[in-house]
Amino acid sequence: MEYKKIDAKDIEFLKSVVGQDNVFVGEEISEDYSHDELGGISNYPDALIKVHSTEEVSNIMKYAYNHNIPIVGRGSGTGLVGASVPLHGGIMVELTEMNKILELDEENLTLTVEPGVLLMEIGKYVEEHDLFYPPDPGEKSATIGGNISTNAGGMRAVKYGVTRDYVRGLEVVLPNGEVLELGGKVVKNSSGYSVKDLIVGSEGTLGIITKAILKLLPLPKKSVSLLIPFPDLDNAIEMVPKIIKSKAIPTAIEFMEREVILAAEEFLGKKFPDNSSDAYLLLTFDGNSTEQVEADYSVVADLCLAEGALDAFIVDTDERKESVWSARGAFLEAVNASTPEMDECDVVVPRNKVAEFIKYTHQLSKEFNVRIPSFGHAGDGNLHVYICKDNLNNEEWEKKLNEVFDCMYKKSVELNGLVSGEHGIGYAKRLYMFDQYGAEYMQIMRGIKAAFDPKNILNPGKVCQ
Amino acid sequence: MEYKKIDAKDIEFLKSVVGQDNVFVGEEISEDYSHDELGGISNYPDALIKVHSTEEVSNIMKYAYNHNIPIVGRGSGTGLVGASVPLHGGIMVELTEMNKILELDEENLTLTVEPGVLLMEIGKYVEEHDLFYPPDPGEKSATIGGNISTNAGGMRAVKYGVTRDYVRGLEVVLPNGEVLELGGKVVKNSSGYSVKDLIVGSEGTLGIITKAILKLLPLPKKSVSLLIPFPDLDNAIEMVPKIIKSKAIPTAIEFMEREVILAAEEFLGKKFPDNSSDAYLLLTFDGNSTEQVEADYSVVADLCLAEGALDAFIVDTDERKESVWSARGAFLEAVNASTPEMDECDVVVPRNKVAEFIKYTHQLSKEFNVRIPSFGHAGDGNLHVYICKDNLNNEEWEKKLNEVFDCMYKKSVELNGLVSGEHGIGYAKRLYMFDQYGAEYMQIMRGIKAAFDPKNILNPGKVCQ
Repeated sequence: MEYKKIDAKDIEFLKSVVGQDNVFVGEEISEDYSHDELGGISNYPDALIKVHSTEEVSNIMKYAYNHNIPIVGRGSGTGLVGASVPLHGGIMVELTEMNKILELDEENLTLTVEPGVLLMEIGKYVEEHDLFYPPDPGEKSATIGGNISTNAGGMRAVKYGVTRDYVRGLEVVLPNGEVLELGGKVVKNSSGYSVKDLIVGSEGTLGIITKAILKLLPLPKKSVSLLIPFPDLDNAIEMVPKIIKSKAIPTAIEFMEREVILAAEEFLGKKFPDNSSDAYLLLTFDGNSTEQVEADYSVVADLCLAEGALDAFIVDTDERKESVWSARGAFLEAVNASTPEMDECDVVVPRNKVAEFIKYTHQLSKEFNVRIPSFGHAGDGNLHVYICKDNLNNEEWEKKLNEVFDCMYKKSVELNGLVSGEHGIGYAKRLYMFDQYGAEYMQIMRGIKAAFDPKNILNPGKVCQ
Repeated sequence: MEYKKIDAKDIEFLKSVVGQDNVFVGEEISEDYSHDELGGISNYPDALIKVHSTEEVSNIMKYAYNHNIPIVGRGSGTGLVGASVPLHGGIMVELTEMNKILELDEENLTLTVEPGVLLMEIGKYVEEHDLFYPPDPGEKSATIGGNISTNAGGMRAVKYGVTRDYVRGLEVVLPNGEVLELGGKVVKNSSGYSVKDLIVGSEGTLGIITKAILKLLPLPKKSVSLLIPFPDLDNAIEMVPKIIKSKAIPTAIEFMEREVILAAEEFLGKKFPDNSSDAYLLLTFDGNSTEQVEADYSVVADLCLAEGALDAFIVDTDERKESVWSARGAFLEAVNASTPEMDECDVVVPRNKVAEFIKYTHQLSKEFNVRIPSFGHAGDGNLHVYICKDNLNNEEWEKKLNEVFDCMYKKSVELNGLVSGEHGIGYAKRLYMFDQYGAEYMQIMRGIKAAFDPKNILNPGKVCQ
């Protein structure tokens, strides 16, 4: 495909739309904008612009479309699959200054926001109003636009579902600059194809989200966590389908190994409440009364103890909660800090296949002689498995990484899993998805892309391309 | 568009795939198959075939695709918008004999079913295992394939959401006969565009669903309904946003007028617990303990009584529940039996706009001198409004119906509502959707249709066409 290279006239136009101070070119563009949190893939945009309204986004998209200039939207840049890297240069539309909370509607239990509002701001704002936005991805400095674009998941998916389940309506600028309103404050919708659900998780390839109407719930009044040590990881993870079968529905079920806990302790310089066991499950239960929450967690604690758990620590004070969950929140950074380079696999498998998958990664670790720590959302089958470079040279590393990835994604297919549970496909995971889905499925996705973006100007080279 | 007319050779092929006994032509085709529950639109297929496997559906689709023969899938025919009427004749694929429950997976809380399983069978089956399939559309003899195709809603949407929220995976036969597996038993999925969510609610225009993996929940142990009489309907409906704002989340909030209750009493030959008031709210609360459910409904009962409710009847015995909910279930048929013909409007508006919309229908009823009873899901903003022909002649009826519909759909747009909350667009509501969405939005939908069905053989003339 042939794109037009940006010239002085184009820059003039961009300045006329968003103002002189919001257009950056050449060395004015910070290195940050050439990549996201994924190592190994980077490219600079030819022009970076900071936008402040839907109208600006629309005008710029129309211009890019008419002039055949590639264009990519970007939030906080916290993605893990290179989805916002401008592979073909062109215009980068930076949305973090469209960051207003527009309306809290308590009669419809909705929150209307601009795309650049941060996840942590949403949580704080709604909790002050005794309300709850359940999706809980680990990276709280991500924008809501980015969360919607990757259909981000997080820890509370066991009970509450993922971002998709909380998006009632979207305003989207199409590649040709037209603005669509999708869904709304309505609770039900059977009015034609769900274009809204197509935009959710499309990683900025079908349109740029400029507004979102989110569904809220009443804030649960009580929340208690359980930290349960087990003699080994298999033992811990094999509990998960039994917990699900018991019909107690925790808000979250996370698993962790001693190695990762030690790394987090070192990284944070703080002690975890217990690090004497090889493996742990960390569960949360929420509800509106102490009795109800106690009834739920007692069933699960008793079940775990009957099946070989070494103890069951109740984490109900603010201090203990902070200590446990701040460690959990630091796992990714702690693993990252423990090795010069790493790459991660974010597969999702049926919940009763988690143990089998993790056992397989242990086997791979031995076979390839490479460190593969893991942790993740045992309760929803979404694993975060890290392959660490440690002291390998670049050539060995590339080779091992590819071989280990190939093995893991094959295993995931064998277990009826999928390539990505919550981090998306972006640039990095495309080939694994193509392999799993096959030609016919990919042709449908490419047909959808063409329906939105016939000139392929919006975030080219991603997801299905 | 030019379709091939079915001839003897085609019939021979169909018989070779599904067997002699499963192919029907000409007068062998019952009148039922020429329409759904919507009056006024009917057409016969040229051949009706009963299928029993995905492979049969795939072989027939491939043949239809190669020979340019229109093809339409059909479940129980309980639709209300003509979505399964074979406008262009061709082949009708009848799926009600693909009616096996394939697997209950208690470790993943999923139920795998063929598309012809009836909603009532799913409810019964999972409840026997102490599990719960929350979507609760009124028409229990609908197939699950039909429910998924319309993204059916029902009464429990206030708390539990709609069919879309309970579809984890689908097997779909594309118009060219290829079979896709979408999603699976996984809880999270960020692996490319959500083609599964596009199929949900696409009314049989993008593919034929041959298998579904449904998400289940533990069965709530307690359920109590409240029947709350009010002096008038406005007063009743104006309570709804206040109830939502109170942060008690009922499972269902239905509204009903005295006129509809009387019609149901006559239709069923059974008394409703109370018919002395002009208007009622009927609410349900569920949970796992009596205390929890009582706490929830007490808040709402007290709130209603403080705001002008005349009483609050607790409906907690099986007998009372049966009496109230069987009446609620008979409303549609009761209204239908009260008039020689009727048509319905299934708009959805934000929950705090329900009162305004219903007031407007009362105004229209006076203005056009036509009976417009209504009832519906006050808690989720999805209204069922019936325009009754009564003693109008055909010409007057057609004229008034169109005028009243035009007014209602305009009002819905004004209130940020949408054309259909749960019955779909099918054939009957297309023009209202086109009007609301506009050219650009419809072009996206048509592009999506073309990506799946470039020869436009699958259920042509529906939804976006």
